[in-house]
Amino acid sequence: MTKIIKQYENIRNKINAYRFALFLVNWDSETEAPSGCFINRSKQVGTLNEEIYKLQTAKETSIIINQLYKNRKQLDPILSHEIVEFKRSLNRMKKVPIKEFVEYRKLLAVSPKTWQQAKKTADFSLFQPTLEKIVDYTKRYIKYVETKKNQGYDILLDEYERGYKTKDYDLFFSELKDELVPFIQKVTAKSLEYNDAFVNQTYPIEKQKEFVKYLETVMQYDTTRGLMKESEHPFTSGFGPADVRYTNHFHEDNLISALFSAIHELGHAIYEQQVNPELENTLLWGGGSMALHESQSRFFENIIGRSRGFWKHHFPRLKNTFKKQFKGIKAKDFYQYINLVKPSLIRTEADELTYPIHIMIRYDIEKDLFTNQIQVKDIPAIWNVKVKEYLGIEVPNDREGVLQDIHWACGMFGYFPTYALGSAYAAQIFRTMNKDFKVLKSLKNKNTEEVNYWLKINLHQYGATMKPKVLFKTVARGNFNPKYYIRYLIRKYSKLYQLDQ
Amino acid sequence: MTKIIKQYENIRNKINAYRFALFLVNWDSETEAPSGCFINRSKQVGTLNEEIYKLQTAKETSIIINQLYKNRKQLDPILSHEIVEFKRSLNRMKKVPIKEFVEYRKLLAVSPKTWQQAKKTADFSLFQPTLEKIVDYTKRYIKYVETKKNQGYDILLDEYERGYKTKDYDLFFSELKDELVPFIQKVTAKSLEYNDAFVNQTYPIEKQKEFVKYLETVMQYDTTRGLMKESEHPFTSGFGPADVRYTNHFHEDNLISALFSAIHELGHAIYEQQVNPELENTLLWGGGSMALHESQSRFFENIIGRSRGFWKHHFPRLKNTFKKQFKGIKAKDFYQYINLVKPSLIRTEADELTYPIHIMIRYDIEKDLFTNQIQVKDIPAIWNVKVKEYLGIEVPNDREGVLQDIHWACGMFGYFPTYALGSAYAAQIFRTMNKDFKVLKSLKNKNTEEVNYWLKINLHQYGATMKPKVLFKTVARGNFNPKYYIRYLIRKYSKLYQLDQ
Repeated sequence: MTKIIKQYENIRNKINAYRFALFLVNWDSETEAPSGCFINRSKQVGTLNEEIYKLQTAKETSIIINQLYKNRKQLDPILSHEIVEFKRSLNRMKKVPIKEFVEYRKLLAVSPKTWQQAKKTADFSLFQPTLEKIVDYTKRYIKYVETKKNQGYDILLDEYERGYKTKDYDLFFSELKDELVPFIQKVTAKSLEYNDAFVNQTYPIEKQKEFVKYLETVMQYDTTRGLMKESEHPFTSGFGPADVRYTNHFHEDNLISALFSAIHELGHAIYEQQVNPELENTLLWGGGSMALHESQSRFFENIIGRSRGFWKHHFPRLKNTFKKQFKGIKAKDFYQYINLVKPSLIRTEADELTYPIHIMIRYDIEKDLFTNQIQVKDIPAIWNVKVKEYLGIEVPNDREGVLQDIHWACGMFGYFPTYALGSAYAAQIFRTMNKDFKVLKSLKNKNTEEVNYWLKINLHQYGATMKPKVLFKTVARGNFNPKYYIRYLIRKYSKLYQLDQ
Repeated sequence: MTKIIKQYENIRNKINAYRFALFLVNWDSETEAPSGCFINRSKQVGTLNEEIYKLQTAKETSIIINQLYKNRKQLDPILSHEIVEFKRSLNRMKKVPIKEFVEYRKLLAVSPKTWQQAKKTADFSLFQPTLEKIVDYTKRYIKYVETKKNQGYDILLDEYERGYKTKDYDLFFSELKDELVPFIQKVTAKSLEYNDAFVNQTYPIEKQKEFVKYLETVMQYDTTRGLMKESEHPFTSGFGPADVRYTNHFHEDNLISALFSAIHELGHAIYEQQVNPELENTLLWGGGSMALHESQSRFFENIIGRSRGFWKHHFPRLKNTFKKQFKGIKAKDFYQYINLVKPSLIRTEADELTYPIHIMIRYDIEKDLFTNQIQVKDIPAIWNVKVKEYLGIEVPNDREGVLQDIHWACGMFGYFPTYALGSAYAAQIFRTMNKDFKVLKSLKNKNTEEVNYWLKINLHQYGATMKPKVLFKTVARGNFNPKYYIRYLIRKYSKLYQLDQ
């Protein structure tokens, strides 16, 4: 056994080394790589991906994994979990003919460019043939890997959030729809009086960066184990708790975007920085699942970062950093503006309350697509109808409609629902956390130390050592139930908009 | 044959992918990686290096290389050259027991830290045990790879500059010593009158960067295929002509350092950007040799960048960028200051004339070390004596003496001489170039386009497709002869210091 564990560790080291390389390549590509290098780079990335694939699907690897799998009861529980996961993904991987897989990777290497072009000209028809190919492959992929007949979309959902199937999301989204769609109408019928003169001001980038640095200290982000850079779309990327980086974007006319992108990404980053460093050599040093990761960014962005408690302590500093721009503005004005509910076209700019509706639209479309209810060519029209139905607004063009997100161009179907689930997780985790201490009151210390510590002990430290649902149950001390999310939203926004509950 | 070439190309792709990964890891490490990530990172780098090593020394690789080597006459000449080089390095690599090699790499992973500590406290004795281990390994390495008895130091010299042995460098350095040491004494006995009031001024970093951006356009550096960042020590690093990056350092009290570091590194960068893009998929997309690479950086830094012709056209812009600091300064003042000859302790800060003397000291010591004339513990005392003898100055401590350079801590013995050889190459290439067009006159176009083009056609485009000596002969249209370098230096500085030649 010791010998075979050693052999396994050897493979694991290689996988980690390749992943490390790809982590840095991606970081470089997104933040600073010169435009001329991408043709050559795509070859190198192709080779590195091929090497990981070959290593994972090699006969020796299978033999080792199977041996360890048979004896998993004798293994240390963390290693045992890792082996079970490895075998699971191996089983899937081996079902796809290598040739088709390679072809598909090649398609994905260029498809985002096609999407970008189509988005630029707001013309879905330019992207349609590419998207059709991606969907065709994905349907074939489903056929290859499904273990029962007609698992369909469930296969994809399960890949982004283990254990969640169409029936789970159907239930989740139908509750959301029933409760939130009418509630949003009630909210948007009211209008609040407050001073928002700070919105149409100019905010020098250097000053914005200075305040974001301050937010890093508030959230206790460890800059000896990470750094911030700029990219078009903010993201977080790490390689173990000792190197967790994030990006932000800065626009002179939009302070709010930089602030809340920072808090959001720092939520992701704190999660990975707080993973037990002993997991660094394993394959389990990341977050527990997509939804759990998103729960942390949303928790910090919305529940903490858009709370009165938070800005009570940090608004004076913000006002002091931007004296001219915030002249005459009170903390309450700022608080009301950052929680303004206003149905809008773009998901990434949506407020906390309408956000899950954007996800629901995507979920509905994906589900219908993979159950063959609709075809790719139908998507734009359906999109526009749903936006009108749920959010009450007209979609003026494909750029602000179906073409706004990159996900489908990268073959990511089944991903979107985890965003809404993450928000719902966050609310339920918040409820549990409040049983242990008064969360928003704890912010009086001018940092999130108490919150971070609770999350570290109850969630972050575990990395990916448990199945996502087990991990959620551990941190939330109960099964997932969307009612906590709905209750949280209705309470918060009823109070804000002075509605009866 | 086609099949075996295909197999070879497959191996080559993998080698390139690993090298690409290591290129980016190194770039990240030197420019922005957070301090806390290095322990984990060193494991990943270790694994990637091990994978390259294994791939290169694998039995299949040997079989393929040997087959192609046997049939090299039938191969395309570039591929044939590549195979000859591959086989050559393979032969060496296989002679070193893997265990010893791995141990040594581990030593090198920590030795620079030990050196850094010793340098900080200016105490050679802290570094001595580590350096002894490195030297011991290197001596064993020589024994493993030498094909004749007592090749000793020649093995190391040849690794950094193929075809150069002790007898070549002895001749080179003895000519330099005979001519330059007395000449430097003559030069330093004279003193020039000029206004250097711009030296003790403050130069805002942003303005320095702005002027460096301008120098990039002057030297026609293509920023769609590269970028500049900051690091402690400036360096250039690339992966094929489509991605050639360089770094610089900026200090408010030192404009000159940033300017000439930029021109130097841009010299390296232009070289790699001008390599034939068709070589991108081979292993030959780099420079022809260490000395050839250095010849290009030195050519731009000293021959172009410290010429009157260059500053005649760019000094007005410099003065305009730093109006206050350059008030009352004339182009001639600036020209004289940037060519000031002043024996000094630190190699990297040495002027053009005393620079090769610094190299000579290191060469003498390395040679004596590897012919067992001296021991590691003797080095500091010998160093100090030589600095006194050749440059006439006292070394106050090890930090400014023997501990100043990182090279030995990285096991790089035999590297230093290529710096001086590069300078000498530059002078001889300059002479040849002047036969085709008036080089300094061509700078009136306010850029180096004509120079770049000549270098592209005569040198850069070839990458590493020829043996270094053949390549030098191609560009210089004759064998190397140090007299051109000596003549260049004596002419330039005789004129500057108004000495009879």
